[in-house]
Amino acid sequence: MASAWLLPEHLADVLPSQARRIEEMRRELLDMARTYGCELVMPPLLEHLESLLSGAGHELDLKTFKLVDQLSGRSLGLRADTTPQVARIDAHLLNRAGVTRLCYCGPVLHTRPAGLHASREPLQFGAEIYGHAGLEADLEVQEMALEVVRRAGLKNPTLDLGDARLVRGVLGDVVLAPAELEAVIAALATKDPVALQAMAAVLPAEVLQGLQTLLSLYGGVEVLAQARARLPAHPAIHAALNDLQWLAEHLQQTHPEVSLSFDLADLVGYAYYSGARFALYAAGSSDAILRGGRYDEVGAVFGRRRPAVGFSLDLKTLVALTPDKGLRAAVRAPWGGDAAQRAAVRALREAGETVVCVLPGHEHEGDEFECDRELLRVGQEWVLRAL
Amino acid sequence: MASAWLLPEHLADVLPSQARRIEEMRRELLDMARTYGCELVMPPLLEHLESLLSGAGHELDLKTFKLVDQLSGRSLGLRADTTPQVARIDAHLLNRAGVTRLCYCGPVLHTRPAGLHASREPLQFGAEIYGHAGLEADLEVQEMALEVVRRAGLKNPTLDLGDARLVRGVLGDVVLAPAELEAVIAALATKDPVALQAMAAVLPAEVLQGLQTLLSLYGGVEVLAQARARLPAHPAIHAALNDLQWLAEHLQQTHPEVSLSFDLADLVGYAYYSGARFALYAAGSSDAILRGGRYDEVGAVFGRRRPAVGFSLDLKTLVALTPDKGLRAAVRAPWGGDAAQRAAVRALREAGETVVCVLPGHEHEGDEFECDRELLRVGQEWVLRAL
Repeated sequence: MASAWLLPEHLADVLPSQARRIEEMRRELLDMARTYGCELVMPPLLEHLESLLSGAGHELDLKTFKLVDQLSGRSLGLRADTTPQVARIDAHLLNRAGVTRLCYCGPVLHTRPAGLHASREPLQFGAEIYGHAGLEADLEVQEMALEVVRRAGLKNPTLDLGDARLVRGVLGDVVLAPAELEAVIAALATKDPVALQAMAAVLPAEVLQGLQTLLSLYGGVEVLAQARARLPAHPAIHAALNDLQWLAEHLQQTHPEVSLSFDLADLVGYAYYSGARFALYAAGSSDAILRGGRYDEVGAVFGRRRPAVGFSLDLKTLVALTPDKGLRAAVRAPWGGDAAQRAAVRALREAGETVVCVLPGHEHEGDEFECDRELLRVGQEWVLRAL
Repeated sequence: MASAWLLPEHLADVLPSQARRIEEMRRELLDMARTYGCELVMPPLLEHLESLLSGAGHELDLKTFKLVDQLSGRSLGLRADTTPQVARIDAHLLNRAGVTRLCYCGPVLHTRPAGLHASREPLQFGAEIYGHAGLEADLEVQEMALEVVRRAGLKNPTLDLGDARLVRGVLGDVVLAPAELEAVIAALATKDPVALQAMAAVLPAEVLQGLQTLLSLYGGVEVLAQARARLPAHPAIHAALNDLQWLAEHLQQTHPEVSLSFDLADLVGYAYYSGARFALYAAGSSDAILRGGRYDEVGAVFGRRRPAVGFSLDLKTLVALTPDKGLRAAVRAPWGGDAAQRAAVRALREAGETVVCVLPGHEHEGDEFECDRELLRVGQEWVLRAL
């Protein structure tokens, strides 16, 4: 049992200094979402596998830990993503007619890490708007996302826009086997024209040409005009480009400080995106800090095809990028004492101060907490003195 | 897929009204623990099975969901209790010489519910003091537990005290098979003298007599004197009764409003308790709201036998017992608008107000949020008007 303290790969304890910052950011983001009218929900960590995975695609399936429920003998999954659960809550439990704004914050678990240094237990925070198909909901979600970056104190945000309908529009009526579709998506994700060319056997020439064009369509807002000129005429492509144009214009107006970029081939994220999608980058992060978009289909499997748009992020990753604000200092107090001392300690704690009572025999140990004052008796009074 | 929205038994979504209260209580309790100098830690949900279960006993084993790690091929467990993880953090990761106060708040998962209406996913909050063997640490932990009840607004708290050393002292040198020991513990837990008598074949007469005596030792502080008179002379029993006496006297002094009760046969909870233990009851709860005690042995398996005392509770259960404080009211605002309107909305949100922007086309739907004011333009100004 020499290794009882060893943790599985890509799983780690979060120690006090980091945990405090995660907790502070958690509150900041939940409070922010509340100011937009988002109501907090808490779906369970375990669900029937088919509920967790329905409509969510192969990638999420591979990421999901599976186990058997002793009570029912059925297969359960540990959630690897919270969005399908929140869609289920909107569709079935709340079942409201109008607009519903929801948010959540809790752990998700992944069988395999997303990257070399990624945790298999991200702490996922997200906010979502259900019930409004118009771009106003997309814009509000993007505003919330930008507010996350602002509250986290991250500099030079770049909002990267794309749309899931572009690749689908270029593919048109072409029917691909799941493995072939995955290969196309992988080639687009890695911006690999050679891998794309290798699909020539299963793709009509004009479709292949369209996908190769998509690969080159990234950069500033000028990309939208290029796309109009070079992509095939298809209603989905037309709608997607119009939507991106509308969003870009509104964002430039409401958030002139934010850089906009476009990557029309980007399909990173889960299979459920159905319209405009976005990712947020900031100074110091090579990967996106958060991702979001429209996923109108995700509630269909729960019997209710509601318009939906939202974003999510990993709080642990976010906090690792933010500056530490430092520990609030504490008060050292002797243990025990009379009613007056107990009242003094209680009043300090009531006011939110940390009061570390020195337990008998530990008077000469170093403080684990940074105590900058001590409570001591002067005459009949208990007073604070700077240390 | 008609049942995609059905959840496994004893697992449920937490909907907005309840989730908000759980979040508020979560913050209240974490802030309270911080005022005592407790540092927050976040152990992972998944660990190697032998780390999670070492020294924790058969009951926790049965409660723990198991699965296989694809990365290593090893067995992992989903934590069913956070205390052994926190002991591991104290023993190995922090490895401090002096007193360490830690707290945590996160989900745990149980293969089987603890009761007819119990959730298999409690949200466990706990606070612990490591490194002090004296009763002062027990008292501080009990004070924190009473502070939980006070902050939750629960009336008529009763602190029930016992000690794990009493049963062990009565058993003395008797060696029982695990199943026999479990039968004894079960008989004591259910206060069943008949079931205890059935153990006559494996228990010496004086031990059986001692256990039957324990069964009758519950009630007020007078129980301690009765125990001194009627239980066998054994150093562990002597120490346990002295400790309970000390704690009772100090609690009566510091918390005269709290009722004290004693149940010397009670061993409910995990196998790791090694000394004084306690449970807190309040008006309206038939079960204990929280349980705690001393478990000096729990870090031994991680290579460091540190004194330890703490308590834990399920936030979902606690919140179900507390009165609802009602939703803070919100402001309704029209969507979009000019820079002045956007600035007005932003300022309200900055001040912590919930501002629900009515998305175009949803003007005549009922509010999901209780909006008591609306933002509207009067001349060149944006002002709030009561609804």
